[in-house]
Order: sequence, then structure tokens, then C-alpha cells
Amino acid sequence: MISIVLIGTGNVATQLFDTFLNYKQLNVLQVFGRTDTSLAYFNSKTATTKHYNQLLKADVYIITVSDDAISNVVNNLLHLNGLVVHTAGSVSLEALSPLKNKGVFYPLQTFTKGKKLDFKTIPICLETQNKKDYSTLKIIAETISDVVYNINTEQRKSLHLAAIFVNNFTNYMYTIGNEICEENNIPFDILTPLIQETALKINTLSPNAAQTGPARRNDIQTMQTHLEQLRSKDNQKIYKLLSESIQKKYKNL
Amino acid sequence: MISIVLIGTGNVATQLFDTFLNYKQLNVLQVFGRTDTSLAYFNSKTATTKHYNQLLKADVYIITVSDDAISNVVNNLLHLNGLVVHTAGSVSLEALSPLKNKGVFYPLQTFTKGKKLDFKTIPICLETQNKKDYSTLKIIAETISDVVYNINTEQRKSLHLAAIFVNNFTNYMYTIGNEICEENNIPFDILTPLIQETALKINTLSPNAAQTGPARRNDIQTMQTHLEQLRSKDNQKIYKLLSESIQKKYKNL
Repeated sequence: MISIVLIGTGNVATQLFDTFLNYKQLNVLQVFGRTDTSLAYFNSKTATTKHYNQLLKADVYIITVSDDAISNVVNNLLHLNGLVVHTAGSVSLEALSPLKNKGVFYPLQTFTKGKKLDFKTIPICLETQNKKDYSTLKIIAETISDVVYNINTEQRKSLHLAAIFVNNFTNYMYTIGNEICEENNIPFDILTPLIQETALKINTLSPNAAQTGPARRNDIQTMQTHLEQLRSKDNQKIYKLLSESIQKKYKNL
Repeated sequence: MISIVLIGTGNVATQLFDTFLNYKQLNVLQVFGRTDTSLAYFNSKTATTKHYNQLLKADVYIITVSDDAISNVVNNLLHLNGLVVHTAGSVSLEALSPLKNKGVFYPLQTFTKGKKLDFKTIPICLETQNKKDYSTLKIIAETISDVVYNINTEQRKSLHLAAIFVNNFTNYMYTIGNEICEENNIPFDILTPLIQETALKINTLSPNAAQTGPARRNDIQTMQTHLEQLRSKDNQKIYKLLSESIQKKYKNL
């Protein structure tokens, strides 16, 4: 059995906590939070504390606070002997360097408050300094997920950057689609099957092979019409830049 | 029973044909194509022809050729009495104006060769000039799909433009994510659960509410680091423009 203390009480902490509870071999001893309100959810289910000097002895401490808060948390954990890991895509392993035993346990997914995710399909990216720590993290990761990767700091930072494009910027494309629908009294729901299918398509086709549309076909006339149709200057700029980039990429294909 | 002739032999024609076959009340009398090769798939299942003057008498003729080929097809259909519809998002109803009875039957989805889609969830956007023709199209549409909309030419053109953003440009975001993975020896598969969840999220949250990321948080430091990390100038420009647009949109929120 692996004993775990969670440091942080946000979406990631809550989802990990709920998931860990499903497995006997993962024992969440304690949750650390800054306020009674933030700890309320965990109170009835395990020990909680607001004080770093009251942290229990555990095999693994999992930091789930926001990126900028990590260094502050680390400075309060110097007395611990267990393995301390963070869960942040864009933060290096080195950010934990004052600590004796450190690692990264990065679940690559977007977490929404109140929406339970099935961890089995969530890739978990692990990094440690030694094999023993890696084995410990691997047991936790493989207990909750079927997809576990050994990913170093550089790769993880690149993954996080790639995730900005496929998650944040993709969602912004949805936002612009929504705007265009609203301007024309069309329910945005009409677009959701297309959105789902676009995402599913890359399970069987590479995104390169799946690219379609006027820019891919170099259909100047349609692109010109679209630019005239767009009411927002920002959206015009985005349409233009993305189309030019697609045209350039495929011009000899 | 409604008798149908399909004009065209591409992805849309094939998927409609296969779907219509499932319903007794929809009778595909004939498929028109330009070559024997393109008609091969349909030959054993229904009548086929390469000659416009051999088109059979039917209730509805569905044109599924590419947008620029529509006007040429129309000029060859002037002798028909049935209702003639096209299936194109960005083409107006007026494009069929030399014809007596015209309409639009636009399934809003991305079609991939060889990948069967379930039409039940595909929105079908209808437009006609009169109620009788609308009723006919509605019977066909509601037979194969649970989501049927009355959408005029202006709205359909806007929908098609919105689809460029949520489908073509979103797929391009996947392409950039893939590029970044390849540059860093990371399997792109790690990102697919995130991609699926991003698409599913908007079933429960509006894209506005679902927006996350450094630009949304106005996290200048992270955005600067990301720009330095990106190797392609084009991708830097895209990162910058999309981030600025997101920052502007949410600056007072």
C-alpha cells in the first residue's frame, strides 16, 4: 500500500482524491489546504490540515497548487522525508530541487470543476531522479490509468505547449464559431456533431491527412468571400493568418 | 415512398447512398457519375448512368458534386421536373435558379472516405422555395437524422464559415500540436485524450466559459516562455495573434 498526502484542494486534487479512493492500495492519509472552506469536501473522508508542520509521514506528497504557488509550497516542505511530486506541465523537476526526493506526476488532461473524468484513459507523464522513486510513482499511475509515460522536463514543457494549441486555441476556434452563430441567430448546437467528429477523426487519420477546407485546396475565391463575411477585425486577422499558414504548408502537396 | 437520384459519386454521395438503403421509404433509383470507375461502387446496387439525358424520372435529385462544379451540373438538368437540391454549405439556393424546383439539403458534417458516419446525429439544414418542396425534403431528412433545421442561404453561409473555424482551423491546431510533438520525440497519441475532452467539454460548458490557458489568465511570463520555445516562425505568429485576441476578449472578465 502506498500512503499519499495531497497538497492543494482544487480541481486536480479533488479528481485525484476521488480516484485514489477507488483503490485499496492507494491510501490518502491527509489533504492540506489553506482554508476550512477549501477543505470542507475532504473533511469527512480523510484527515485534513492547514499547517505544514502537521503534515503526516507519507510515501508520496502530491502538490496540486497553481504553477506560481509551487515554489512557496516547496519552501514549506523541506522537513519531509517522503517523495514530493508536482503535477504541473510547464514546471521543471528542478523547481523542487531544495527537496531530498522529488518527481513529477503530470496528468495530461483538462479538468473541469464538477465534471468527473475517467482517469483510465488520461495519460500520466512521470519524471523522477532515481529508479526507486520512479517505481513508486509508476505503481500509483498504473493503478489509476492505462496510459503512463516516462517524460523528461524538456519533453513535458513541449507537451504543455502543444496542449495550448490543441486545447486552449482549439477552444478559441469554438468561441469564434459560437460568435458567428450568435451574430446570425443560429444555435451553436448545430456545430457540436462536427466538432466531435473533427476530434474523433484524428484517431484514424493524422491531422496532416485530415486537413480540408478552402486554404488546403488553395480556393482563393472562397477565402475572399469568407473574409468579407467576417464582422470582427480580429477574426479576419485570424482567418487570414491561419489560411496563409495552411496554404504555405500544403503548397507543394 | 420518395424516389431519389444521386448526382455525384464522392464521399457525400456514398454516405447518403448507404444510409438511404437502410430505409424502405427512400428509394434510390439511380446514381449519376462521370466515369465507370466512379460508378463501380453503385453498379451492383442500383441503376447508374454517365449521361444526363438518361436520368430517370424521380421525386428528388440530389447534387453532391464539388462547389465549383454545381453550375455546370445545373445547366444539364434543365429538362427535369423533379425537385433538384444541392448539398453545399457555401452555395446559395439561387445557384440553382435556372431550375423549376430547387432546394438545399446540407448535412453539416466532415466526411472521410471509408469512414461510415451515423447520420442520426448529423444536423441536416434544409432550404426550399415553397412548402411542398420543404415537406418532401423534411421527410427524407427526418428519416435519416434526428436533427433537422430550416436554414436560409445567409445563415447557411455563416454556418459554413463557422465550420471553417471549428473544423478546418481546429484540425490545424492539431497539426501544430503534432509538429511540436514530432520535434521533441513525443508520440502525438499522448494528446488525443485531451483533444477528445476539449471537444466534449462544450456539450456542458459554453466555449466562452471553457476557455483556459495563459492568455485567458493574462500570464505574460508563460506566454513569453512559450514564444521562445516555438521553433517555427509561423507558429510563433499564430501563438501571438490568438493569445492577443483571447487577452483582449477577456481583459475585463
